[in-house]
Amino acid sequence: MIFQGIEAINEAAKRIAPYIHRTPVLTSLSINGILNSQLYFKCENFQKVGAFKYRGATNAIHQLSPTQLQNGVATHSSGNHAQALALAAKIKNIEAYIVMPANAPKIKKDAVIGYGANVIECEPTLEAREETLNRVIKDKKAHFIHPYNNFNIIEGQASAAKELIENAPNLDYIIAPVGGGGLLSGTSLSVKYFSPNTRTIGAEPTGADDAYRSFKAGEIIPSIKPETIADGLLTSLGSLTFPIILAHVEQILTVKDSVTIEAMKLIWQRMKIIVEPSAAVALAVVMDNQHLFNGKKIGVILSGGNVDFDTLPF
Amino acid sequence: MIFQGIEAINEAAKRIAPYIHRTPVLTSLSINGILNSQLYFKCENFQKVGAFKYRGATNAIHQLSPTQLQNGVATHSSGNHAQALALAAKIKNIEAYIVMPANAPKIKKDAVIGYGANVIECEPTLEAREETLNRVIKDKKAHFIHPYNNFNIIEGQASAAKELIENAPNLDYIIAPVGGGGLLSGTSLSVKYFSPNTRTIGAEPTGADDAYRSFKAGEIIPSIKPETIADGLLTSLGSLTFPIILAHVEQILTVKDSVTIEAMKLIWQRMKIIVEPSAAVALAVVMDNQHLFNGKKIGVILSGGNVDFDTLPF
Repeated sequence: MIFQGIEAINEAAKRIAPYIHRTPVLTSLSINGILNSQLYFKCENFQKVGAFKYRGATNAIHQLSPTQLQNGVATHSSGNHAQALALAAKIKNIEAYIVMPANAPKIKKDAVIGYGANVIECEPTLEAREETLNRVIKDKKAHFIHPYNNFNIIEGQASAAKELIENAPNLDYIIAPVGGGGLLSGTSLSVKYFSPNTRTIGAEPTGADDAYRSFKAGEIIPSIKPETIADGLLTSLGSLTFPIILAHVEQILTVKDSVTIEAMKLIWQRMKIIVEPSAAVALAVVMDNQHLFNGKKIGVILSGGNVDFDTLPF
Repeated sequence: MIFQGIEAINEAAKRIAPYIHRTPVLTSLSINGILNSQLYFKCENFQKVGAFKYRGATNAIHQLSPTQLQNGVATHSSGNHAQALALAAKIKNIEAYIVMPANAPKIKKDAVIGYGANVIECEPTLEAREETLNRVIKDKKAHFIHPYNNFNIIEGQASAAKELIENAPNLDYIIAPVGGGGLLSGTSLSVKYFSPNTRTIGAEPTGADDAYRSFKAGEIIPSIKPETIADGLLTSLGSLTFPIILAHVEQILTVKDSVTIEAMKLIWQRMKIIVEPSAAVALAVVMDNQHLFNGKKIGVILSGGNVDFDTLPF
């Protein structure tokens, strides 16, 4: 199988189509007016499990062999990938083992348990996650599905931008938030193949700006102690996502949490839809760089809508 | 002109169609599962100004004569009718004078001012509203558009249920919240004309249950000191809305604010859309009366999505 080619992206989209929602692309005259641009919001907050992650998880599980499937799947995730893998495993009727940091939002943990997966808690450090995961994989002989550093995941996430391009052609820019880079790398591939005149931009919180720094340096510089309300973007780029991003993304723009909170409130108030902070980062970047986006036609991937209402930032 | 006839409803729908959004009808597998029924949510939270009220206001303004239009329109409203009339007046390029209680949610006052209307504040009592409005009408010679006790308003609001019936035929029930009764009376007329086998149910907070009591008594019994988080449902039935409701609504069900808060949270969490407490009352009634709605096909009118995020009930 050739990874990352146009055929792989097309096949992934076809493979997952029966299982996912084709989410709507919404526009808001009032936000367009405020920002003097034409924005097309790809609403992955309406995706199953409330986030784009269901695309990648579904694509990955549906490419496992019967032998790989028989002992179930395992992963570590701070949230949405956990729910996504849990539901995709349930649909496929296999076990899922999800290692989650003890401080993950309660709504996300409850959802994972609700989908019938096994949750294994660990300390909120990358080391603890990996140790715990390795133990689970050894004990259960489950197949590891990485949250982003996996070509099947990347190709699944690419389908969101592919659909956006189909619904809103001739975009000047597509902006996706970047954490581990699964969504951003997939987005940049879909842009390359299906809308080559569009430029892909990554949106990242200043408090977790490893992608920005890695992109500048040309090599992966992981985040040490990332701090941001965008809890889906705490992870650092992976060895598979980074080269794709370096090759096909025009630039990474960072933005402060205060602007992200404003962006989130704007979307809630004007569009009457719920997006999580990680999703709002993409609009925040537009608000923060009006010189760049003035008068442009911009696709914004609203990556998810899983919000813990007990800890709202406003 | 014959009021309340099928032709009046059809004409109102045609008249306002170029100005309003045809809002989507959404479903949620998870909420259907929780409540063991098939729910069809008519999303008037996505309507212009964030509420169904824009339908009635547009219909009313577009039926005024040039003489009636020349000095603008005036009204009193605790919120959504104010925004609706303000925007409808702006589109028609006439002045709007809006009398608002000083304690109306800030987001609603700001929106009215944003639409270029004149806001005149008053004490939060019906008497103060009416006195202030009468003064404004005398001073400005503006044409009064009542928030609900006006056939043109009722016929405009009826278009929401008409669209819902077109998108989701053969409903067992349609549930609409009831405050002054503009939405509920209009809904009951559309059900009568376009889906006669469907039953219309009014949903009302126990803390503002004048419609429930009036319906039982067969005469209008106004609320004295209504108290509910559903700030759009504080008003009492009007002389025009009540007889329609009495004739065509099957029953009024009341529900506690605590259930409404649960319903609101369920919609936010599962559907990722923002609805205001007054809209959630309609789903709360389903949650509270599962014996009645079990296994049924139910249309729920989500009346609006204008929420003050500084005073969220959760």
